[in-house]
Amino acid sequence: MLYAQSGGVTAVINATAGAVIEAARRRQVKVLAARNGIVGVLREDLIDTSRETSAAIAALRHTPGGAFGSCRFKLGAIDRDRARYERLIDVLRAHDIRYFLYNGGNDSADTSLKIAQVAEALGYPVKVIGVPKTVDNDLALTDCCPGFGSVAKYTAVSVLEASLDVASMAESSTKVFVMEVMGRHAGWIAAASGLAGNGPDEPPHIILFPEVPFDEAAFLARVQATVERVGWCTVVVSEGVRTPDGRFLSEAGGRDAFGHAQLGGVAPLLAQRIKDRLGLKYHWAQPDYLQRSARHLASRTDLAHAIAVGKAAVAYALAGRHAVMPAIVRTSDAPYRWKIEPVPLAKVANTEKVLPKGFIRRDGYGITERARRYLSPLIRGEDPPPTGKDGLPRYVKLKNLPVARKLPPFEPAD
Amino acid sequence: MLYAQSGGVTAVINATAGAVIEAARRRQVKVLAARNGIVGVLREDLIDTSRETSAAIAALRHTPGGAFGSCRFKLGAIDRDRARYERLIDVLRAHDIRYFLYNGGNDSADTSLKIAQVAEALGYPVKVIGVPKTVDNDLALTDCCPGFGSVAKYTAVSVLEASLDVASMAESSTKVFVMEVMGRHAGWIAAASGLAGNGPDEPPHIILFPEVPFDEAAFLARVQATVERVGWCTVVVSEGVRTPDGRFLSEAGGRDAFGHAQLGGVAPLLAQRIKDRLGLKYHWAQPDYLQRSARHLASRTDLAHAIAVGKAAVAYALAGRHAVMPAIVRTSDAPYRWKIEPVPLAKVANTEKVLPKGFIRRDGYGITERARRYLSPLIRGEDPPPTGKDGLPRYVKLKNLPVARKLPPFEPAD
Repeated sequence: MLYAQSGGVTAVINATAGAVIEAARRRQVKVLAARNGIVGVLREDLIDTSRETSAAIAALRHTPGGAFGSCRFKLGAIDRDRARYERLIDVLRAHDIRYFLYNGGNDSADTSLKIAQVAEALGYPVKVIGVPKTVDNDLALTDCCPGFGSVAKYTAVSVLEASLDVASMAESSTKVFVMEVMGRHAGWIAAASGLAGNGPDEPPHIILFPEVPFDEAAFLARVQATVERVGWCTVVVSEGVRTPDGRFLSEAGGRDAFGHAQLGGVAPLLAQRIKDRLGLKYHWAQPDYLQRSARHLASRTDLAHAIAVGKAAVAYALAGRHAVMPAIVRTSDAPYRWKIEPVPLAKVANTEKVLPKGFIRRDGYGITERARRYLSPLIRGEDPPPTGKDGLPRYVKLKNLPVARKLPPFEPAD
Repeated sequence: MLYAQSGGVTAVINATAGAVIEAARRRQVKVLAARNGIVGVLREDLIDTSRETSAAIAALRHTPGGAFGSCRFKLGAIDRDRARYERLIDVLRAHDIRYFLYNGGNDSADTSLKIAQVAEALGYPVKVIGVPKTVDNDLALTDCCPGFGSVAKYTAVSVLEASLDVASMAESSTKVFVMEVMGRHAGWIAAASGLAGNGPDEPPHIILFPEVPFDEAAFLARVQATVERVGWCTVVVSEGVRTPDGRFLSEAGGRDAFGHAQLGGVAPLLAQRIKDRLGLKYHWAQPDYLQRSARHLASRTDLAHAIAVGKAAVAYALAGRHAVMPAIVRTSDAPYRWKIEPVPLAKVANTEKVLPKGFIRRDGYGITERARRYLSPLIRGEDPPPTGKDGLPRYVKLKNLPVARKLPPFEPAD
């Protein structure tokens, strides 16, 4: 079995990796891991996970980041990128890989599907399973995505805590606090911040979603009104918020390997606007990677999902399923109940699940009760990592010993 | 007894407040609290803490922010600001305040001292105790300041976690991660980030201290060398980092109520410089208030300090001590041992404890073993707040019922 991680990592993707390896070990199946995702497969840069102790694999459950390395590298259409796809199959064949588990988001589901198709076309017998993971929560057919619940919890707790700070200082100091959150195209994380409070006087007082075109005058009026009524105002802004003509409010300038605009910096921009127009003292925060790596604050529900999809992926592969993804299916909101079911990768790839219209309040600045019913279970429970005598979490670093190469070199970027 | 909070709040200042109120209740002393610090005393805006339940007071132990409100408001010299000082004494007298406990940093120690002097001059019998608190860790005569250990722990854990993320992605994505931390004039928090790793290949690879003039060419060369050697690079930069001519590298433009420059935004500035000059992909984070309000990740050692200074302040006041502050005295590094002793406010006020030269590595980019011996005990242990079924910490909101006014109105800002 070959396991690889793809795209932005999460607080719990390693929990999925650990579950995969433990489930495969129980079935006497050896697991190789690709170093740095699909790039490692192309380079035949593989890791022998059987050289890791059980304790090290168990510690993946509580270690953030991507233990084998991840990547941002997108394969093109099969006909345009045939050399790379054929190389992938060559590597799988050289190492007698019968099961390929690719742990990622939308782009990875697409890659997994194409690998499945090329393998079939070339007559190489491999079962390909997509394993869901993304803090963006935008994968189709699964009720939620492992990684999202933890960033949602981090965001809600951070807004709650920072707002207590702002409330204490507002009389003579900071009146407006602006916090930026991830979410390029969908406001899932922004929505999760809404769990920090209830009602118009509790933070966050204003959420700016990518789904709602930014209206500066209306926004500033709302900030002003909130400060007059409450004494202070907490604003959560999605990195993906756009002007009415569809452009990102702030672009860092660069583009990532997938051609997506690299965003960042909308919080300071809004804060400065608030000062210039309203004369209010501000602070702003941009947690960036902190929000998706904060394993110390992971959601126990999210962790349970991450482990369950890993286990199910192994079970599906060994049962001969192909080109599917284990999806989280919610069967009840209250009490929260869920199960795992296989869905076809073809229906997941290249489809983005957007925030339902019914999740955003009519005024556009907050979440509805329906959103709360969906989001609330996802941040429940804690699973703190063990901490050393030095006061730091004990995160594991694997040995990641390489598997001997059998093929000539191949450079993916060439 | 009158208790007030001053300056930037911390994850554990309310633990001090709770300890003060509990200790006073045990001695049958009624505690009033000023709403929004000294501003509330001037306005005679006082809160009757005897109306709060024992459970609510106990919950202050695990609630961040400032439960009674804090302020940034500095009194001037006694002769220039006589009307305000006399008003303060009038308010103390009107409410028969025999003990005044002021919980803050340098400016508050100075204010406490002046109130003590004015009270003596006017013959009003009140015992004034300064109670230490500041994430900046810059108070003289105390080994450390309650609030610092928790922001230190937050910073070290965040650097550790975010760096695992960067390490996973570096092969094909982000190579440099820049995180900004608080610390206007002293690099205590920046230094604490050094606890995240050991040796030159572990993060943070580069720390930029306010104490070390910023040398752009040397910094960029070091980033480049780290990326070549390690594959990626984590940089921690203090908000107070300065150019060789002594100016802040980045100023947000405004100044706070004390006339200090309001800083922020040095992380994106450095990140952009790294991209422009080295062509490396970056991410940056600015946790801002998140770092000092993260009670969910507070240090148990810091919490113990916060509680101890609160208890000692009450004991000193009731024992008739005047114009003193309970200081934390370290008696041993390993095992870590400490005790509380009174120190004269006159020796604390207006003195800033800078990071010792021996704490910064000779190359200027990291911490020494001596710094580790000092810092390490301060981040040890956890004391997670209780969490509700909703997955959020259960932070208390006090009733904060007002005490009836007895004097004519007075507006501090007039």
